[in-house]
Amino acid sequence: MAKELKELTSRSEDYSQWYQDLVIKADLAENSAVRGCMVIKPYGYAIWEKIQRQLDDMFKATGHVNAYFPLFIPKSFLSREAEHVEGFAKECAVVTHHRLKQDPNGSGLIVDPEAKLEEELVVRPTSETIIWSTYKNWIQSYRDLPILCNQWANVVRWEMRTRLFLRTTEFLWQEGHTAHANREEAEEEARRMLEIYATFAEKYMSMPVIKGVKTASERFAGALDTYTIEAMMQDGKALQSGTSHFLGQNFAKAFDVTFINKENKVDYVWATSWGVSTRLMGALIMTHSDDNGLVLPPALAPYQVIIVPIYKNEEQLKAIDAKAQQIMDNLKALGVSVKYDNTDNRKPGWKFAEYELKGVPVRLAIGGRDLENDTVEVARRDTLTKETRSCDGIAAYINVLLDEIQQHIYDKAIKYRDANTREVNSYDEFKVEIEKGGFLLCHWDGTAETEELIKNETKATIRCIPLNGDKTPGQCMVTGKPSAGRVIIARAY
Amino acid sequence: MAKELKELTSRSEDYSQWYQDLVIKADLAENSAVRGCMVIKPYGYAIWEKIQRQLDDMFKATGHVNAYFPLFIPKSFLSREAEHVEGFAKECAVVTHHRLKQDPNGSGLIVDPEAKLEEELVVRPTSETIIWSTYKNWIQSYRDLPILCNQWANVVRWEMRTRLFLRTTEFLWQEGHTAHANREEAEEEARRMLEIYATFAEKYMSMPVIKGVKTASERFAGALDTYTIEAMMQDGKALQSGTSHFLGQNFAKAFDVTFINKENKVDYVWATSWGVSTRLMGALIMTHSDDNGLVLPPALAPYQVIIVPIYKNEEQLKAIDAKAQQIMDNLKALGVSVKYDNTDNRKPGWKFAEYELKGVPVRLAIGGRDLENDTVEVARRDTLTKETRSCDGIAAYINVLLDEIQQHIYDKAIKYRDANTREVNSYDEFKVEIEKGGFLLCHWDGTAETEELIKNETKATIRCIPLNGDKTPGQCMVTGKPSAGRVIIARAY
Repeated sequence: MAKELKELTSRSEDYSQWYQDLVIKADLAENSAVRGCMVIKPYGYAIWEKIQRQLDDMFKATGHVNAYFPLFIPKSFLSREAEHVEGFAKECAVVTHHRLKQDPNGSGLIVDPEAKLEEELVVRPTSETIIWSTYKNWIQSYRDLPILCNQWANVVRWEMRTRLFLRTTEFLWQEGHTAHANREEAEEEARRMLEIYATFAEKYMSMPVIKGVKTASERFAGALDTYTIEAMMQDGKALQSGTSHFLGQNFAKAFDVTFINKENKVDYVWATSWGVSTRLMGALIMTHSDDNGLVLPPALAPYQVIIVPIYKNEEQLKAIDAKAQQIMDNLKALGVSVKYDNTDNRKPGWKFAEYELKGVPVRLAIGGRDLENDTVEVARRDTLTKETRSCDGIAAYINVLLDEIQQHIYDKAIKYRDANTREVNSYDEFKVEIEKGGFLLCHWDGTAETEELIKNETKATIRCIPLNGDKTPGQCMVTGKPSAGRVIIARAY
Repeated sequence: MAKELKELTSRSEDYSQWYQDLVIKADLAENSAVRGCMVIKPYGYAIWEKIQRQLDDMFKATGHVNAYFPLFIPKSFLSREAEHVEGFAKECAVVTHHRLKQDPNGSGLIVDPEAKLEEELVVRPTSETIIWSTYKNWIQSYRDLPILCNQWANVVRWEMRTRLFLRTTEFLWQEGHTAHANREEAEEEARRMLEIYATFAEKYMSMPVIKGVKTASERFAGALDTYTIEAMMQDGKALQSGTSHFLGQNFAKAFDVTFINKENKVDYVWATSWGVSTRLMGALIMTHSDDNGLVLPPALAPYQVIIVPIYKNEEQLKAIDAKAQQIMDNLKALGVSVKYDNTDNRKPGWKFAEYELKGVPVRLAIGGRDLENDTVEVARRDTLTKETRSCDGIAAYINVLLDEIQQHIYDKAIKYRDANTREVNSYDEFKVEIEKGGFLLCHWDGTAETEELIKNETKATIRCIPLNGDKTPGQCMVTGKPSAGRVIIARAY
């Protein structure tokens, strides 16, 4: 596609515009003709596929299986769990009819009034209700437990303000829904999945996260506990990147799902649910990218290495082709994904800019002098540094370099996060500091009132009570009342 | 889950009931609380995942990339292509509102009349319209072509009579949508994808198919040509298992998608679309399974080998565990997937029946005598035969056996199909023969009138004009008018 390789808006100039520019220009996604729904373009989708594959392997390694449940949820199901309906009814796409017809008055295609549904269907905003209505038939005895199902699906939440990947009306996600014989096992599962999300974020996305538990007012609608991983973006704002919910017996009670336990008594089943979504794409972009474009961790890059030939004539190109092929073969043998771009309709400079924009971790350039000297120019996307190296052992070198890049961008991100995380001890200080962004570690009295006040006055929210945080008691920065330990407060996406 | 391992209804007794029983009892899928929508259970979904992975690899190997387009289609988009709207408007789930609210009169949750959409949205029955409205922005010049996108997605068609996997309101599928600079390239693509579907069906599903082209009246709504693969089920009925459409410039014209060609002239873009769905699950089940349950081709079985221990006491079980572990390690090293079921809450006989029902290709049983003799009992699901073999080299033996089973069930299916395919030369003969089922090779005069008459009088349809069929001209069996060659007529799912 013809495309202007214009400069991106810089982050310092307008962070939000930089993000928007980058998503579009790097061919990750775009807005569609349907309000709030995005088109995920092939390059963006290739990253999502890598995310999916890796998470799916991790879920399966911990005993989970995939299944598929209906897109539609009968309206009455939503009402069964009081908090759940409160949380989702206001942003539902509602199917009311099952047929269109040509207007007999000639005004074109209209909804056929005779095809009105007896009960309206909601496009799933999340699937607890339809799944627990199904589990009712699957569970009779403790022998049927645990059930450890996951589904990869699309969901719809009618958001008023949308942003590509971060908040869209339709998004893609996975939702795990597990059923257990007792409370301990369910709580353990909820925490296990939080650990998996954290490991995935840190190891594969190179994105440091803080594991914590949400306050009551920030919980998933219907949960007893919501665990979260929170990451810091480069503008100092927090991004909730994955949540795992301990649902207690709420949905079992709502859908009357009981079982005979080992003691031969009837009890309600215990539940968890957990999910990450295409929002992770937004997190990935905002954690690492710079004013030149995307920076991708090698573990999730659609291709890890791009090779660009620089040639004067066909003969030279042929020689470079041969050299490139050899390097590619060696890289592939090591499991490194590589693309060779010898298309002749673009100049090397254009290609350099294009692959920089797209965040390819390593670029190799081969020119006439490289042919003479048996060398190659190696450029790192993360540091934007270049070096000329002998072709001898180049594949092994790059294989190590990719790991180094994966680690380096993680270190950089954690350094940024740590530099922007600080303890704050008074509300006056807080009001000044919150304007600078970052994570503020504060004492809070544990009440919803204080939380609400902070939110209303500063637009900052309690991101989580960190699991591994400082548990030294103190005094609430707002009310002076006792606090059990510091919580993380930040402005958030 | 507690489950009755009752006998299935036999195929001869009631084929349709046998299918229904099998899908439920083998834990493949079940009906949900939402009319016409199914729940795909973990065992069924594991087969679908194997199908997906294999097809996805084949698509990528032929240069295709995945992307994702919105679930919703504005009502007006459907109307743009005249035949398309005719084909799909009558069976659409229509979203009219974006919010529910509590009825102020206390009747519970109702659609909020103030949240009515300006334009209704249709849940995609297929995505040509939304995709071509997107492609308009992606294509300016021949340099932007071809576009070779595929998407894995859910679609909804409001079917009145549904059957698990075969015809459901919501189903899962992949839909490829490609854009080309000229007619030849698009037609070539449509046929290439038909070949891929045929190869997949025959090689991985062990399901013989006939490649052909649909008659005008059986074409996809908006296509110039619909290519199809048709398989014969064990009741002699045809099942359309995949289609690939040459769409000409219809959608490009409907959405005004033009490009500058190499001659610097403006032209409309040429298109194809192609898809297979969870319907393949129905085809797979009905091609191979028997009155004892599912028969799965090893290439798509969630696990290819099940090992069942037969033991008198804990000590013996321990020895069998060790032996089984060794065999498993050897099988896994050869890439064979294997499960060991040493759970103690079921007897071996129950397990044998269970895995037979679930179609696991090879069952190994290890008992006390096997320990003494260093042997194992090998049972084939396809032939229901058993033999005792030495453990020495057993993994390599099973690895070969799996290929043999894959081939054997294909041979069996093709033998069945050939035995039930016959030439018919008069309409009187046809009316008798069609009652026996199978594929009838008949001369047809090429008119929609004759096709319609045959359909109305016999409930049989022209499945396809086979690509590799007998092209000897003849006379239409109904009208006696000239025929260019025999077509395949059958009753179909």
